[in-house]
Amino acid sequence: MSSQSQPNLRIPGPVPLPDDVLKIAGSQMINHRGPQYADMLDRMTANLKTVFMTANDVYFITSSGTGAMETAVTNTISAGDRVLSIIVGAFGERFAEIAEAYGADVTRLVFDLGQAADLDMVRKTIRGISDLKAVIFTHNESSTGVSNPLEDLCRIIHEESDALILVDAVSSAGGVPIAVDAWGIDVVATASQKSWISPPGISMVTFSKKAWEAHAHSTTPKYYFDIQQYEDYLKIGQPPFTPCLPAMFTLDVALQSMVDEGIENVFARHHEIAQHTRDGAKALGLELLPDPRFASNTVTAIRLPEGIDGKAFLALVTRNYNVILGGGQKSLTGKIFRVGHMGWVEKAHIDEALKAAEETLRSMSS
Amino acid sequence: MSSQSQPNLRIPGPVPLPDDVLKIAGSQMINHRGPQYADMLDRMTANLKTVFMTANDVYFITSSGTGAMETAVTNTISAGDRVLSIIVGAFGERFAEIAEAYGADVTRLVFDLGQAADLDMVRKTIRGISDLKAVIFTHNESSTGVSNPLEDLCRIIHEESDALILVDAVSSAGGVPIAVDAWGIDVVATASQKSWISPPGISMVTFSKKAWEAHAHSTTPKYYFDIQQYEDYLKIGQPPFTPCLPAMFTLDVALQSMVDEGIENVFARHHEIAQHTRDGAKALGLELLPDPRFASNTVTAIRLPEGIDGKAFLALVTRNYNVILGGGQKSLTGKIFRVGHMGWVEKAHIDEALKAAEETLRSMSS
Repeated sequence: MSSQSQPNLRIPGPVPLPDDVLKIAGSQMINHRGPQYADMLDRMTANLKTVFMTANDVYFITSSGTGAMETAVTNTISAGDRVLSIIVGAFGERFAEIAEAYGADVTRLVFDLGQAADLDMVRKTIRGISDLKAVIFTHNESSTGVSNPLEDLCRIIHEESDALILVDAVSSAGGVPIAVDAWGIDVVATASQKSWISPPGISMVTFSKKAWEAHAHSTTPKYYFDIQQYEDYLKIGQPPFTPCLPAMFTLDVALQSMVDEGIENVFARHHEIAQHTRDGAKALGLELLPDPRFASNTVTAIRLPEGIDGKAFLALVTRNYNVILGGGQKSLTGKIFRVGHMGWVEKAHIDEALKAAEETLRSMSS
Repeated sequence: MSSQSQPNLRIPGPVPLPDDVLKIAGSQMINHRGPQYADMLDRMTANLKTVFMTANDVYFITSSGTGAMETAVTNTISAGDRVLSIIVGAFGERFAEIAEAYGADVTRLVFDLGQAADLDMVRKTIRGISDLKAVIFTHNESSTGVSNPLEDLCRIIHEESDALILVDAVSSAGGVPIAVDAWGIDVVATASQKSWISPPGISMVTFSKKAWEAHAHSTTPKYYFDIQQYEDYLKIGQPPFTPCLPAMFTLDVALQSMVDEGIENVFARHHEIAQHTRDGAKALGLELLPDPRFASNTVTAIRLPEGIDGKAFLALVTRNYNVILGGGQKSLTGKIFRVGHMGWVEKAHIDEALKAAEETLRSMSS
């Protein structure tokens, strides 16, 4: 990974891809209305259900993860519906903006950057909103390296309301357990370029029976992201619109290999490499941004020491070590750096990235 | 192309890709918020303007061509606006459906399958609609192999109205001249898997000043396809949402090579291979579906002889000759077959496809 031609890309997605996956991404085009595609779609649908531990419907959409978040909103919520948006960072704010763009009456419950959602506050806020239609939130906030306690949040929402649960799991799904049926999640949104060891281009959603009932009553205008189109075409083994084949080809392989490996092993692997990253950062005397109880298993956010120019730091790490780290976004710009560890990651990748950070910080402090 | 592992894919997109392009599609991921992406986006934007002969803005969106059509509609039209939809086939009907999904008051002007839009009828219809906000239509109807007379249509619309002109050029752009500025087209929509010698995953749009003025007054809800997001991020050399990198990488190369070849030469090449296809079909005694004056230069639709089972025909051509042809859609199912010739096409590819069709038809008739 450290040759001049192959930087060690450690942003939280797109993830670097091993050579055999790149070869699959460069496979010849096929007829997306023919039997080969139908077989692939059938297999992918079954395997994605396995990863999400669900009997709910699942669909593949050609868009970024934001398109899947819009799909979650526009298919279940109508203008005027009351929505609670739990926000622990930039992507939580985006989810709220999408709901507002489509006319939802959004209540924002915002937590400090680096913190997860507080369960008691969530409970109290839900009690204060009558006719709550949906609760929307980010599972893994890649802007701060925080994972919300998904199972606990779902339990509390179910205890306190009949609201739909729409989860942005773009940067967690595939690397972290999400028991869609056991936890009662109505829509999960994710995207190919994260833990799924694929290029960007395909987003994925799960849809519960309750989400379908909401769809039947939703007055929100939609076409490209209308999940009914995906369902109608799935029945004949086709996509409604020409799909991003490179990402479909690699996702097919990735999903099969996750199922073959055993999803509990995939999740354990992500936990182990995340712990290795956190331990390594702490060994360098660096402080993690997130509350350690909620540190993400797919991306680690590390505070930059006082007085370090964050932009110069990232540039030096790339120029001198051929390592590409994530920076901070919005109010965290220049204050943190982020190390992605989702999908295909070896300890050597992490060690090289941390060594580059360490030596660069030392050179900047001297 | 005729080896067992590489079928001769002659559907009207996704187009088959040469080996060097497939290798580029399988390139390693990069940071889409870094300088390498910014350079690429800058170069692609300039080259796409050259191909469209325009000074208008152009944008790259991660979606199929239908997403670009939705972008055209939702950014310029508001609920209740009067829209004329000129329909010569399945994709024209789709454009009308998108406008209706977002509440437009759509008048449909429908022509027989195989016919292009009649200019006098278009003129008369426009005169009958007061406060016409937009005229929407398909340039190249890939379901029938018909190309509408784009320059003439634009002239008449401008003569008769102040309406916006929104063109679905998904299957024509890149292979056929579209002089966006000279003809006064407000939005053109196209997609990577057609004449652009790229996999599906990226759609492209042009936006005129008049389209931007309409955007400022549009009350249609939107987020993922809100062109303002693409404009805001373009200024800092970034995409608003993680882009389909495989298709961006190949589009970059394709756009540069089109500009280097000279776009007039690219269009001449498409005309020549289309004429070769039409001549070849006629030499076999087969009849073309479209009115010859409006036969498409990117896809040829050929009538199946009476009594031939169209589904069996397509299956036999694939099984016995490893050639994949397009079938007919909706009311044309079983009545035609289609040969795509956009992007990278050699005469041998066409000859092989026509020979497979000829021998299969002979075997089915005997």
